[in-house]
Amino acid sequence: MRILFLGDVVGNLGVEMVSKYLPILKRDYKPQVTIVNGENSTSFGRGINKKVYKQIMSAGTDVITLGNHAWNNEEIFDFIDDTKKLVRPLNYPGKDVPGSGYTIINVNNKKLAVVNLQGRIFIDPIDDPFQKIDELISEIKKEADAIFVDFHAETTSEKKAMGMYLDGQISAIVGTHTHVQTNDDQILKNGTAFISDVGMCGPFDSVLGMKYENIIHRFITQRPTRFEVEEKGRGIVSGCVIDLRDDGTARSIEKILIDPNHPYKG
Amino acid sequence: MRILFLGDVVGNLGVEMVSKYLPILKRDYKPQVTIVNGENSTSFGRGINKKVYKQIMSAGTDVITLGNHAWNNEEIFDFIDDTKKLVRPLNYPGKDVPGSGYTIINVNNKKLAVVNLQGRIFIDPIDDPFQKIDELISEIKKEADAIFVDFHAETTSEKKAMGMYLDGQISAIVGTHTHVQTNDDQILKNGTAFISDVGMCGPFDSVLGMKYENIIHRFITQRPTRFEVEEKGRGIVSGCVIDLRDDGTARSIEKILIDPNHPYKG
Amino acid sequence: MRILFLGDVVGNLGVEMVSKYLPILKRDYKPQVTIVNGENSTSFGRGINKKVYKQIMSAGTDVITLGNHAWNNEEIFDFIDDTKKLVRPLNYPGKDVPGSGYTIINVNNKKLAVVNLQGRIFIDPIDDPFQKIDELISEIKKEADAIFVDFHAETTSEKKAMGMYLDGQISAIVGTHTHVQTNDDQILKNGTAFISDVGMCGPFDSVLGMKYENIIHRFITQRPTRFEVEEKGRGIVSGCVIDLRDDGTARSIEKILIDPNHPYKG
Amino acid sequence: MRILFLGDVVGNLGVEMVSKYLPILKRDYKPQVTIVNGENSTSFGRGINKKVYKQIMSAGTDVITLGNHAWNNEEIFDFIDDTKKLVRPLNYPGKDVPGSGYTIINVNNKKLAVVNLQGRIFIDPIDDPFQKIDELISEIKKEADAIFVDFHAETTSEKKAMGMYLDGQISAIVGTHTHVQTNDDQILKNGTAFISDVGMCGPFDSVLGMKYENIIHRFITQRPTRFEVEEKGRGIVSGCVIDLRDDGTARSIEKILIDPNHPYKG
Ligand SMILES: [Fe+2]
Ligand SMILES: [Fe+2]
Ligand SMILES: [Fe+2]
Ligand SMILES: [Fe+2]
Ligand SMILES: [Fe+2]
Ligand SMILES: [Fe+2]
Ligand SMILES: [Fe+2]
Ligand SMILES: [Fe+2]
Repeated sequence: MRILFLGDVVGNLGVEMVSKYLPILKRDYKPQVTIVNGENSTSFGRGINKKVYKQIMSAGTDVITLGNHAWNNEEIFDFIDDTKKLVRPLNYPGKDVPGSGYTIINVNNKKLAVVNLQGRIFIDPIDDPFQKIDELISEIKKEADAIFVDFHAETTSEKKAMGMYLDGQISAIVGTHTHVQTNDDQILKNGTAFISDVGMCGPFDSVLGMKYENIIHRFITQRPTRFEVEEKGRGIVSGCVIDLRDDGTARSIEKILIDPNHPYKG
Repeated sequence: MRILFLGDVVGNLGVEMVSKYLPILKRDYKPQVTIVNGENSTSFGRGINKKVYKQIMSAGTDVITLGNHAWNNEEIFDFIDDTKKLVRPLNYPGKDVPGSGYTIINVNNKKLAVVNLQGRIFIDPIDDPFQKIDELISEIKKEADAIFVDFHAETTSEKKAMGMYLDGQISAIVGTHTHVQTNDDQILKNGTAFISDVGMCGPFDSVLGMKYENIIHRFITQRPTRFEVEEKGRGIVSGCVIDLRDDGTARSIEKILIDPNHPYKG
Repeated sequence: MRILFLGDVVGNLGVEMVSKYLPILKRDYKPQVTIVNGENSTSFGRGINKKVYKQIMSAGTDVITLGNHAWNNEEIFDFIDDTKKLVRPLNYPGKDVPGSGYTIINVNNKKLAVVNLQGRIFIDPIDDPFQKIDELISEIKKEADAIFVDFHAETTSEKKAMGMYLDGQISAIVGTHTHVQTNDDQILKNGTAFISDVGMCGPFDSVLGMKYENIIHRFITQRPTRFEVEEKGRGIVSGCVIDLRDDGTARSIEKILIDPNHPYKG
Repeated sequence: MRILFLGDVVGNLGVEMVSKYLPILKRDYKPQVTIVNGENSTSFGRGINKKVYKQIMSAGTDVITLGNHAWNNEEIFDFIDDTKKLVRPLNYPGKDVPGSGYTIINVNNKKLAVVNLQGRIFIDPIDDPFQKIDELISEIKKEADAIFVDFHAETTSEKKAMGMYLDGQISAIVGTHTHVQTNDDQILKNGTAFISDVGMCGPFDSVLGMKYENIIHRFITQRPTRFEVEEKGRGIVSGCVIDLRDDGTARSIEKILIDPNHPYKG
């Protein structure tokens, strides 16, 4: 099974980049399943709405994952419970969290569980991701032939620790949230594909997708600053392609990076 | 001018890897100046001491930079004031901070300023790195032909913001501290070389250089856990090579990564 | 010299409580100067505007201090530079911060400096309050007969440390920001009046002035929740009265607390 | 039922103060049960050991509670499982946490549950205290006639929110951890006794029990500083007395504060 994954789609330019390159990537890589993180896909870079959900899906996406910005646009409550294609972080607390933290889909007569999990270091104190993923794996491991985790977290330590913790139990764990791709894609010792962060899809000449002038103003003044998504200029597409063997272990993980310095060669 | 930079050296295995590969890298890349971050180079992974300082220097290093762990081994106070080759973060507060935040060295009849700067997001609230680097640049820009900054910081946002803030004013800014190499090496619009993090030199099968069992135990229990440097197994060497033009702008930045998946080909 | 100080005024109910009780407190305590923290005085509990500024002043206030919420209502930029009666935290970074971090006023032929200082532990990484207050004291100590500091900070450790650091150099340092009065009012060894926090003026049946249902919802769900100021129910007035000797040392500090359990007896 | 509670005992001077004043307080207040927070009772101010455990117990304590420093002295593992008188925070994660998060004791033919709960804001990301106390109350409410909670937390918001959340479900919730007594002792609307923090038992001329010179050095330099418990000078005893009705609701809560400015009058 081949999985194509793209990281945090940021703003209009992010949606445009995905709309443009996802069909090309699918044509060239021929993944059986495509997953995209959409936690920043509204025009203001926070949360998702029905319109961009449809845009990302119609570009060829099978499942959209989210992150700490999942709830920043209230429109999500209108449709998150109606779709099995939109997955929010598993470990938000409480029994009535809208949506689901995972979905199981059919891929080539195999069942693939797509899980969204969120870290806690320097983010919100939600439920323990180690406990919750343990419980979920116990629950679904008979049903699912392979488990893919989008681990939305800030620090390299929490990400690598989670990777090594889950190594051998799941097929792949890929990081999102920092919006910068790391160069540590690898198959861990027991067969799980891992990368700390795949990076984002959005404006290249920006700070994490936002206009750099605003971000710098905030750092320099420490006074409230309205952050705005960069809408102009050059774009970036970041992600990875993972190949699984029939037994669910990972054969390979390959980074995808399309930006002004890395034009797509196809 | 060609600069070779290696990221945070962690523990004995890190020092070994540098001792082994630095001569080879210098032979092959022929840098005129070599800079290594040594903030984790003691056997316990925190701070530096005279012995490892000498080991890293004798491997062919010209300047050693540090970071938030600079002060974790008190032995540093014995020699930091006696050497111009060891640079601690510029923006520690107070007027009597031991050592210096930068050094200016002669490279090919040019003067290169090597600066160590530290971020504040999710690290200690030291003096404002934006203010301090502004002041330093004003002070040294006549004297220095080129300025290289090792920006030791946690978040991708603070790093990219600092990069774009300094773009055009300095020759290069490379990140350290997360111990994971990022894949965003680039020449910014106004000619400054940038990468969010070059990654570490140390044990590969570890969490940031530490034994993963301890780190996982800490995440799972949230109880105090003694962290130990991983001393066994495979190693990793991470860094970059930067080429500067005569006018101090950057021509290129190239990542260096030597690990089990990327054996050195020379 | 007798100083009356009231802590963070929160929302409409806070302004009402100050309007009602400040004249009574002034009649009974006969302070020569009255200072009120207004960082939460808008109807939504964040920042200040011209209307509430006038309401608080006309209740009998001489100087209004602020805190981390100073900039949350942009209306402040319309008048902060026009008045010497509104003081924002001294240690916001940069040279063009609107307003001033202190003011010097005449009280009984003495000059009293009123300073607003902000802590950094668990708040924003602004400039070092220890450095900045040192510099200010050096600058104004000849001019000012007495110095009063409203130290807006989160932790008891930073507050007590600052108190002991400044003990003997200033007349009084009183804490704000936690919205809960502490019971540690005291004259420190070298004559400085101190209390960790004076508490707030606002709605009593609330969490720090906000509707408790929203705050609890946020804690339980960790999802974004709109916080609203509690506008109904019973009120609280918190503050202190400080008596200074002619040499600027503090003779006494007395807490003021008016709430349903402590009706004002006059 | 009358409960006497004393806050965080810090170091040798703290143990001395408890040994001296607890018998006097018991003689005068005649509580049926005495609870003391011992999380800082070793000579270095972190954790507890067998020796000080015995000292605090033999001063007349029935149950000792803890907090985030529970595990800082490994000696605790030698005896925490052998005693029902030592309670660690309920919400540490995992199934094999040493000790227990609560104990149920007989007081006057009534069963009193003594619970230790820990907050998460600006402390470690342990399990959700709101979830865990809900589960515990469901489990023990038939067995226990009254429930007393020592809520060890940093912020006033988390403390007041927890108080209002539990109001009417338990008899009393008292805060610890900030080491400074608050002046907001009250009976909440539905009959639960509440105070944000009772304060500490230890050295008065200190920052939270530690030598102020070290703490100030740390704030000013941001470099590692060895913190030492203040062993000399004047002491402080902080706590409260709570009276419960037969139905478990609280009739009254009264602060206890003995320090140089508030000598004990008996
Ligand atoms: Fe994101
Ligand atoms: Fe995110
Ligand atoms: Fe490091
Ligand atoms: Fe570091
Ligand atoms: Fe406030
Ligand atoms: Fe505040
Ligand atoms: Fe404590
Ligand atoms: Fe504590």
